[in-house]
Amino acid sequence: MTGLTDAEVRELFRGTRCLVTGGLGFIGSNVALALCEGGADVTIVDALVPRHGGNVNNIAGASPHFIVADMGDSAAVTEPLSRAQYVFNVAGQVSHVDSMQDPLADLEVNGRSQLAFLELVRRTNPEAVVVYTSTRQVYGRPRYLPVDETHPVDPVDVNGVAKYAAEQFHRIYHDVHRIRTVSLRITNVYGPRQRLTGDHQGFIPVCVRCALEGHPIRIYGDGDHERDCLYVSDVVAGLLRAAVCEESHGEVLNLGNDEHFQLQEIADLTVRLAGGGSMERVPWPRERERIAIGSCWTDSSKAKEMLGWQPTVTLEDGMRETLAYYREHLRWYV
Amino acid sequence: MTGLTDAEVRELFRGTRCLVTGGLGFIGSNVALALCEGGADVTIVDALVPRHGGNVNNIAGASPHFIVADMGDSAAVTEPLSRAQYVFNVAGQVSHVDSMQDPLADLEVNGRSQLAFLELVRRTNPEAVVVYTSTRQVYGRPRYLPVDETHPVDPVDVNGVAKYAAEQFHRIYHDVHRIRTVSLRITNVYGPRQRLTGDHQGFIPVCVRCALEGHPIRIYGDGDHERDCLYVSDVVAGLLRAAVCEESHGEVLNLGNDEHFQLQEIADLTVRLAGGGSMERVPWPRERERIAIGSCWTDSSKAKEMLGWQPTVTLEDGMRETLAYYREHLRWYV
Repeated sequence: MTGLTDAEVRELFRGTRCLVTGGLGFIGSNVALALCEGGADVTIVDALVPRHGGNVNNIAGASPHFIVADMGDSAAVTEPLSRAQYVFNVAGQVSHVDSMQDPLADLEVNGRSQLAFLELVRRTNPEAVVVYTSTRQVYGRPRYLPVDETHPVDPVDVNGVAKYAAEQFHRIYHDVHRIRTVSLRITNVYGPRQRLTGDHQGFIPVCVRCALEGHPIRIYGDGDHERDCLYVSDVVAGLLRAAVCEESHGEVLNLGNDEHFQLQEIADLTVRLAGGGSMERVPWPRERERIAIGSCWTDSSKAKEMLGWQPTVTLEDGMRETLAYYREHLRWYV
Repeated sequence: MTGLTDAEVRELFRGTRCLVTGGLGFIGSNVALALCEGGADVTIVDALVPRHGGNVNNIAGASPHFIVADMGDSAAVTEPLSRAQYVFNVAGQVSHVDSMQDPLADLEVNGRSQLAFLELVRRTNPEAVVVYTSTRQVYGRPRYLPVDETHPVDPVDVNGVAKYAAEQFHRIYHDVHRIRTVSLRITNVYGPRQRLTGDHQGFIPVCVRCALEGHPIRIYGDGDHERDCLYVSDVVAGLLRAAVCEESHGEVLNLGNDEHFQLQEIADLTVRLAGGGSMERVPWPRERERIAIGSCWTDSSKAKEMLGWQPTVTLEDGMRETLAYYREHLRWYV
């Protein structure tokens, strides 16, 4: 499999039955669209929780089945799950700040619903492959760079704890119940179909919106923290490869980028490519400074070797694509 | 504080207001009784969940206040919590096997209720010191021995994941909200007031009951897995020291024992001291073998240095005390 191109990997899903949790959200919808294009039979389960990023416009032009339900809802999910060969388990609450303001809601969605879903898999379809999207956030403040999979896990907020618990549940269901799960710890993802509203989202969507609407991008402190970023199509390629790579089942793999940039460089690039917006330096807000992690970028050697995966889209190209998408569809996202 | 005896440390609590969650259970009741004897004003919160070990007989002879409620129940817990200077947060579900049979119940109790309780602390009494009883189980299968606090965390069952999530919540509430929390990763505890019924409890209480009732103690496989064991009064001493040791707040510390024994040695000792029972070797049951961790004992150097703590009761002495207690009170526990 490591010798296949991304397009060839997508072809492996032709005619297969795939379930995508959180499939109306940012990463989930991009996975669902790629699978539809590849000829898979795709069912989406999405709870459409306000603020979580689910948006029916995200699947405009395609026609997957979709079910509006919490992924842990047995009555709604059992039937489509029982038929699935591949599950792309992407559902979740992603805001770090929100997780500190309503921690119980975060644990409910990112912990309890995930565990309830794994119980459904165990009972109704233990043959399915389950690809779980974890996050590099589980590492917390990096003790060395780049961060590889052996780096200590030490999340700085409730979201990181709940995501890590779900990742461990996937590992335990592999080890104890022999379900073929794999977890990808994904770095900062950007691209079309990401939620732009609310200032509790990631840095890149905030930049994109400010630049397109001509508002200043607020940079906290020096803006010199560095990040690696992945264009969403590269993430989708990694998830599809993990699904069909048996060697990766039971494993945890980073999906990140060797390229890394200061936050102010990302803002600069966005303003330049958008031809609008500006930068404004502001002091760190207290609730953000306390969960800030400093610079972070990740080592994806394991995924490259095991999956034959690598990022193919530069930040400049990805940002250009992203801006073009939102210029056309901004009304869906604001 | 490191120069004080355990009795002198207990005196530090005279006249203080203490809350003990899970205070009708095994460790919790022993903490509550020690605090009562030391002259503290003690309130117990316990949900008395069947199978979790809460037992009103455990506090016979003492008169702490007690409230039957889930620790996350705001209406019941807010008032006593708001007055507490020290919280001994001992509540939890402890069976590894049960956590795999009803994983959602385990996450509810060990994860969600803990997080709800920390939210109550943050809102109503952020000045309180909170001592949380974590478990050496978070380490999973030891990669080296003895296991110290830097050993990778890799629990083998849902109980370990949920307990670790709660431990991390305590750390985050310290780091972000400045609440003085400390977590103790406790090894196998035994002694008076432990639940004896059900075969989903720990190895030692099963041995004690079998020996006292004259039934054979079932040893899985070779019985050569080794464990360190702590008599409950040594655990209580460690928890009290952590509460008043400011240096330990924000930290995670092992509480274990340099002494370690094969499971068959523990069974032998119990049979010998009890003057009854026998040993029977049986094959590993499948649901236990899959979550077995092999030999495990822990390094408590950090707690010894930071708290001035050390175990004082040998397994032989502790087992003798334990058998004497249950000979007198067996009717409360079977």
